[in-house]
Parts: sequence; structure tokens; C-alpha cells
Amino acid sequence: MSTTATRVELACNAAGRLVPISVNGKDQRLYEGAIQDNPQGHKAAPAIRSCTQYPENGDKRVPDLETALRKCGLRNGMVISSHHHLRDGDRVAVMALETAGKLGARDLMWFPSASFPSQAAVVDLMEAGVVHHIEGSMNGPLGAYTTQGKMRGVGVLRSHGGRWQAIQDGEVHIDIAVIAAPTADAFGNADGSHGKSACGSLGFALADSMYAERVIVVTDSLVPFPCVPWQIQGNSVDYVVQVDSIGDPGKIVSGTTQITRSPDRLRIAEFVARFLRDAGIMRNGFSFQAGAGGIALAFVDYLRHMMKEDGVKARFVRGGSTRYLVEMLQEGLTDYILDGQTFDLDGVRSIADDPRHVATSPFTSYNFHGKGNFASMVDAVVLGATEVDVNFNANVVTHSDGRLLHGIGGWQNCLFAGCSILAVPSFRDRIPVIVDEVTTITGTGEMIDVVATERGIAINPRRQDLLDAVKGSRLPIRPIQDIQADVEKICGGKPTRPRRTDRPVAIVKWVDGSVLDTVWQLG
Amino acid sequence: MSTTATRVELACNAAGRLVPISVNGKDQRLYEGAIQDNPQGHKAAPAIRSCTQYPENGDKRVPDLETALRKCGLRNGMVISSHHHLRDGDRVAVMALETAGKLGARDLMWFPSASFPSQAAVVDLMEAGVVHHIEGSMNGPLGAYTTQGKMRGVGVLRSHGGRWQAIQDGEVHIDIAVIAAPTADAFGNADGSHGKSACGSLGFALADSMYAERVIVVTDSLVPFPCVPWQIQGNSVDYVVQVDSIGDPGKIVSGTTQITRSPDRLRIAEFVARFLRDAGIMRNGFSFQAGAGGIALAFVDYLRHMMKEDGVKARFVRGGSTRYLVEMLQEGLTDYILDGQTFDLDGVRSIADDPRHVATSPFTSYNFHGKGNFASMVDAVVLGATEVDVNFNANVVTHSDGRLLHGIGGWQNCLFAGCSILAVPSFRDRIPVIVDEVTTITGTGEMIDVVATERGIAINPRRQDLLDAVKGSRLPIRPIQDIQADVEKICGGKPTRPRRTDRPVAIVKWVDGSVLDTVWQLG
Repeated sequence: MSTTATRVELACNAAGRLVPISVNGKDQRLYEGAIQDNPQGHKAAPAIRSCTQYPENGDKRVPDLETALRKCGLRNGMVISSHHHLRDGDRVAVMALETAGKLGARDLMWFPSASFPSQAAVVDLMEAGVVHHIEGSMNGPLGAYTTQGKMRGVGVLRSHGGRWQAIQDGEVHIDIAVIAAPTADAFGNADGSHGKSACGSLGFALADSMYAERVIVVTDSLVPFPCVPWQIQGNSVDYVVQVDSIGDPGKIVSGTTQITRSPDRLRIAEFVARFLRDAGIMRNGFSFQAGAGGIALAFVDYLRHMMKEDGVKARFVRGGSTRYLVEMLQEGLTDYILDGQTFDLDGVRSIADDPRHVATSPFTSYNFHGKGNFASMVDAVVLGATEVDVNFNANVVTHSDGRLLHGIGGWQNCLFAGCSILAVPSFRDRIPVIVDEVTTITGTGEMIDVVATERGIAINPRRQDLLDAVKGSRLPIRPIQDIQADVEKICGGKPTRPRRTDRPVAIVKWVDGSVLDTVWQLG
Repeated sequence: MSTTATRVELACNAAGRLVPISVNGKDQRLYEGAIQDNPQGHKAAPAIRSCTQYPENGDKRVPDLETALRKCGLRNGMVISSHHHLRDGDRVAVMALETAGKLGARDLMWFPSASFPSQAAVVDLMEAGVVHHIEGSMNGPLGAYTTQGKMRGVGVLRSHGGRWQAIQDGEVHIDIAVIAAPTADAFGNADGSHGKSACGSLGFALADSMYAERVIVVTDSLVPFPCVPWQIQGNSVDYVVQVDSIGDPGKIVSGTTQITRSPDRLRIAEFVARFLRDAGIMRNGFSFQAGAGGIALAFVDYLRHMMKEDGVKARFVRGGSTRYLVEMLQEGLTDYILDGQTFDLDGVRSIADDPRHVATSPFTSYNFHGKGNFASMVDAVVLGATEVDVNFNANVVTHSDGRLLHGIGGWQNCLFAGCSILAVPSFRDRIPVIVDEVTTITGTGEMIDVVATERGIAINPRRQDLLDAVKGSRLPIRPIQDIQADVEKICGGKPTRPRRTDRPVAIVKWVDGSVLDTVWQLG
């Protein structure tokens, strides 16, 4: 492997982390602080095309993905992108990379908006030399492969907003975007909310469609022009490929998302809901965002009941949407759902039929290099973490053992909400979640306001306003160090530090494109 | 005036027209044919911004337009753009230019998507030196001012698609876009289908919002975030200004659009509808586009009845939407209205409430430098013209007397439909419409398939397929020369040629950005 032989030059950034100053041959900007950003230059400028180069009748279909990739001029070393709205049910990304391999392509960079365990076949493609490295979340087997130091090149982890920023700013130039589409027409207009493989929003593929050199739409449900709505515009698309199946519907969306049954986690969820109420955040016209994890769902359910009790209505809630948000919309507890991805069947049905359930994109919601974005207008966000340290730095990508197991998703972007809350169990598998120093910083303490555990709620001392707001509340507000001490007693001490080498295998980018931290090869 | 002294170098293009090779200091490409286009280079690349430069709470309001223009760095010589969705009722464009004038700005270029008679005050601003010249349609008093040779600089007429192309390709760099918005939130999300000044779609302002250096949204109906739908995305907007009124509702949309009552024009409309039926274009799943003129509306009404009689349903119809299209949608005669602008109250109500009535933009519909567009997928389009010549070249911008009186609108873009039909009276005010050679070529004969007059229908000899299709029909199909001869008898001969100088006062661009023809100063 070429990179193991190379000595990588490292430097210390403003988060106090050693990071490589060059990654995959590209110079990097080091993290200078969460809101120290003053970009220069201009956005990426895609090539000008002409209608004379496209069929006048709008029919861009080609027989198969092989033909489409050939017509796109597939070459060694190209960047191939895909989106993850089909989640663990996606068949298109691997199909595209395998097809590229069959056509003889080597050293591709795969640039997914996220990866899933079912895409483990990409390990084989990396072994075979078809894929050089991945820039995107490296979960499960891909993460393990990476932290074992087996991937050529260095992984680059970006938030959903950071991915838009990187594409928009020209840091990543996509040669061929392959967009799995639950519904599409022959012109390339595509949508995610209808069809047998319906997944809701297709927003993660939008930047790819706008900035990639060539764009292929792959669908298993072709409708006559026009495909309405067209979240992906055919005017950005080069070829359309019809296949039998773009994915496994059972894994694309959950039939129904499940609230946690763990008493500890229910307790956390209740604490968070009460915190929002007692701190005065839950008020008429407010907004919040919560994911589809068990704690987040339980939180939404608690909050919903409190909102009903107090006669409070939200102006908007942010998805990932689930049954719980959809019910809030239907019950009149919110005017709108602004949805980035759709997690269950109720969410898919709602986004297809209800104009108050609005598909968003990382441009509207998360892009830090826009003229503002939605994330900072959200009053409160409830997120998870694998680790939090006593300085409120948090980790979502690695575990305490140093293994890379998760992507960043929208997590970093969401930290810009008025109140960012990490709802986490204080320990998992007898390993403390609250630590002295996180293994990998994904967000610095200045961005994290509250850590809610089953043993109490820690408020970041920087947020005196929040400390004041809940004074007199019956919530168990405690210094984070106290919760840490409790947990270490239970777990028999601090987590052991991972045995790691000095070789970077991946980097974590901040929302502005700077390098926040490094993931190291394990020893 | 500076330009009168300058000798302008002219060259003959592929349409046989003398055109300036340089306009307003910029070298021009000459027209080489309707589909001779092979653009090189890359799209315009707007400056990268950062969320750190915008209010975290998303509130971009400033007290007034003056403050907004100052904050946008208004300087002499800048390009200020506006859209025309408020039509003759618009108050914002003139307000913006007058405010810029009060702030001392000089030599601005006004870049509207179209202009209207109520904007005659721009003549005063040109006289005062505030506005240097206009690139956009110069109607009514602005057109007269231009053809009198009084405007500094040369006017540039572009189609709606050509305007997108020019912005996208960087041929026109907008410094400040001022977007009148019937509804907006403080973040700058904006929509046209609600509010006291509702106008339907805002698609003409979309390119401005995406590519302008700075974007100001001006609204008289501010709603709490989020303004849904957001056809203009706040993520592209710098400042929001709230005003009492953005326009005169009575002039923004017609209360109701009127079918012509002229027997001759009704006859033309009926001929066109019968032509679509007899030529086999009116069949299940077909599509058509027609404007809001009296003949076009009558045509829609005739066609609707024929569709009902024959049990035919369209897949989509393209707006400008009116009551007649809305009724077709409601009656199940079409699956969709794809709407570029909304002409009457029924259209506005429909686009606001009916998800099958879809707002489009010049990007989806008309941009010739995209990966295809909707215009070429439309089966038939019914358009007007001021003149048509015996070679099927047509004029929509000047009259036979040489006066510049109309913009191009979507006319050129629509010529790419499967069958382009000009529905025109054979003479107006005793001046023949069918001529030997049009005063100004706006579209060449290779793009125009049918000319329908009250004295018969002329089919372009290039379209043998259409000639064959209507063989045996009872329609009065005639050579265009025969109709011309009839008309000249009635009118007492050919129209007199305008007395014009050799000084270009405006140019007509083709959809690909090349120069198709010249409008000359009148003698």
C-alpha cells in the first residue's frame, strides 16, 4: 500500500488535535474554531451543456448502467457519487461500482452521502483495486476495514452540510453521480416519495445532480413525463437507466419506527422533554429537531404530550421524519415538517401527500457556505453521541476503542440550533460515555449546550442563560464531572484508551471544510 | 451621447442579417443557425459565502430598500435585476432604481425579465443618467425611447430561456437582484402564490437569486419562517425589506382573462384547434402550450371541447396559466399544468392549492444551455407574431414601422415544440402581417411549422409530415404566398418599409446567446 510508506506531516489545530496538513494529495485547512470562517473564492462551475447534445424528445434512457457509465466517459481515478436515501436497502451504489469494475475501471473514489452495512461489498472492490478510497461515512465493515489501515488513501468524513459545502466549493469534483430514484421519467426528473421503492426525500442527491460532470438516474419505477414533484431536475441529468429493483423495500424504510423500551433511555427522553418545557424553549411558535433513534422518538412522544397539556404549538419540526412527527402534524401540534430524510412508511406517505410536510435539502438546511441555513433557526435539537467529555466535546464517529463505526450525518450541522442537547446513556456495555477526552472530536464543547443522561442533566457552563432558565425546576441538573464520577464507579473506572498507531486513516471535517480531527489506524 | 459618435462594426450572420460584432463593450457570437450550438467553458461561479456572515436567527430584515442597497455595496455601473411576475402592477423595480438614483448611483444597467408600460419612469432615470441602458424587453414607452436612439448603450433582447442562459453562462453578471415577493419570511424564502399581491409562480427570479452577487427580497406580506413553498430560497438571499405594497393587485393578475370576440380571430383559433385534431397531434397523452392572448385562449376553449368530444386527455399543458387551463385540469382533461407564469386569479388560486399545477422556471422549461429542457417535449405550441415572412421567418419584437414594442418572452424557446404554430390575423390596422421579409427576425423559418390566419393555414414546406397528416382534412391549407397575395389585395399592397438609420439601438439574441438580428434607430 502506497500510503503506509509515506510519512504524513501533522499539525495541531485549534481544537488541540493533530491532523494531517495534506490528505489524498490535497492541502487542508486546519480547524480554527467553530465559527471562524471567512471563505474566499468562488463556487464550483460545472461545464456548460447545450440542448443540442441531448435528445429533443427528452428521452435519455439507455439500456443499462454499463452503457450509461461508458457514455459518461468512465475512466480510472474518477469520483463516483451516490446517495443514501435507500439506507440499508440500497442496491444501486454497489451495482454502479461493480459495473464500473467490470468495465475495467480502477482507483475510483466512492463519494456516498452515507454508507450502510449492506454495502460491505465495497470492501471487495477496494481489495480488487476498483475503489481506491471512500470519502463519506464508513460504517460497520467499511469502518473496520478503514481503522485496520487497509484502505488506500485517507477517508474523509463530512457532515451532510459539509458534503454540500465540499461539492459546492469545488473541494470534491464528482465525475459521475449515480442517483437511485424511486420514481423518475425518461427526461431524468426524479422523486423519492412514490414508487415501489419509495424513500421520501431525495435531498442528499441534489448537490450531486447540480455539480457532477455527468448524472445518471437509476429507477425501478418509470412514469411518463413529467415526474411530479421533481426534487431532482431532469435538466441536470445525462442518462436514465431502468432496472428491476433499486433496493429492498423492507430495508429502505422501517415499517414503523420503534420507541426505546429501556427504562433508562425512556428516563433520558423524559428529562429532555421536561428540560425543553422548564427552560421555556417549548413555547408557541418554537421549533425542534430530533432523529429516529429510540431515545429521540421517545422524547418526541413525551414532548408531544406536554405540548398538548400546555396548549403549545410548534411552527415547524425538522425531520428525519417518523410516525411521531407525522402525527404531530396531523394533530395540529406543528404547522410544518421540514424533512431531510424519511424514516418510516408514515413519513413517506405524509411527504407524498401533505403539502405541509416539505422536502428539504442540505442546501436549505445545513450548508455552512450559504447565506445562512435552517439549522441555526431551530430552537432545540436532540442528538446522540458515542462519547462526550467533561469539556462538552463530543464524538459520534468512533467508539472508545478507536474503531470508526458511524458517519457524521447532520449531527455537526444541527449543533447550530439554539439549544443543542446530547441525549445519551451515561454508559454502554459497561463503558462510560462521559470521558476525560473524546477519542475523536466531532463537535467542540463551544457548540454543545446540554448533556442529558439517565443520571442527570449537565448544562455547559458557557450557557448561563440555560442554567438560569431551569433554576427552581425539579430536573436533576448536575455538573458533568459529577455524572462522570458516578459512572466511573459503576463501570470500574475510565475506559481504556485505544491502542493506535500514528498513521491517519480518516479525517473528520468541520462544517466549513477545515480538518477537525483524525481517525488513526489501530495497533 | 457617446455611442452615436462611435462607428459600430457589423457583420452578416447565418440568418443573413447585419449585426454588431461588439455590443456594450462585449464581443458577440453571431447566429450560426437555430441548432448550431456547441458551448465551451463553465457556468458562472458565484462567490462563496459563509453562515458566519449572516444572522444566526435567520432574520435578514433591514428597515428599507435604501439600507439594503447600501449594504449591498451599490456603486455606479452596477447591474440591477428585477422580475416581471407582477406585470404592469409592479412597483418594486422602479422603486429600486429610483432609490439607487437617490443614493447617487449612476450608469446602472437595468436587467428586468421583462418591462411594462407602467415602468415608463425608467425613461426619466435614463434621462437623468441613473440608468445607462436596459437589457431586457423594451415595451411601450421604453421601446419608443430606444428606437428613437435616445438610450445610451445598446438594448439586448433575450428570450426567457436566453436570459437564464446569459446569467448562467456568466454573460450577464447581476450585482444586485431585487426580487418582489408576494410572500416571504425574514430569512428570504419567498413565494408568489399567496399574499395580497399574489402573482403565482416566481420562476423568472430564480436565476437572479442563484447567481446574483447580492439578493434583496422585497415583500408586502411577511410570514413567520418558513414561507412554504419557497420557490426562492432564503439561502440565496442577503436582505429582506418589508414595504406597504409591492404592486397594484388589479394590474398584477387579470380578474379574468378574456377570449377574443373578433369573428376573424375566433376563426383562427378554431382553425388551430382543428389543425391539432386533424394532424393527429391531439391524442391521448399529448401536450400543448398556449399563451394568454385572446386567440390563444379561444384556441384552448375550442380544443377543450374537441378533446371532450373525442375522449382525449393531455399528459400536461404548459402555462402561462389562465382559467381555461385550470378548468381543463379540474375537468380531468390534463394530468398537469406546468406553469411559468400565472395570468389570472383562477391561475393563482390553482397554483397555490393544486399539487398538479406545478410552478416551473426558465431552467426547467427554456434554458438552452441545460441538459435538455421542457420546451422541446411539448407537442404543439400556439404563438403570436407581429410579422411573418414567406420563408416563415417571424418577428415578435418590432412592428412593420420599425418601432420596438415587444419583448421576446418565451416565444423563441417555445419554437422547439414538436409543432410550432403562429396564430395571427393576416393583417392588422390594414397593414399585412405576412410580408416578404420581416423587419426583425426573432425566429428563423426552420423553427416555424405552421402559420394560421383567418384566410387559411400555411404549412412550412419543410414539414412534409404535417402536410401529409392533414391531407384530406377540410382545413383551408394554402401556400403562404397565396395568403400573402390575398392580403395585399385587401390592404392595397405591401407594408411600407420603415425609415431607419444604420445605427443599432438593440440586438435580438437567439436562445444560445448568439446575435440573431439588430433593431435600428429610426430615421
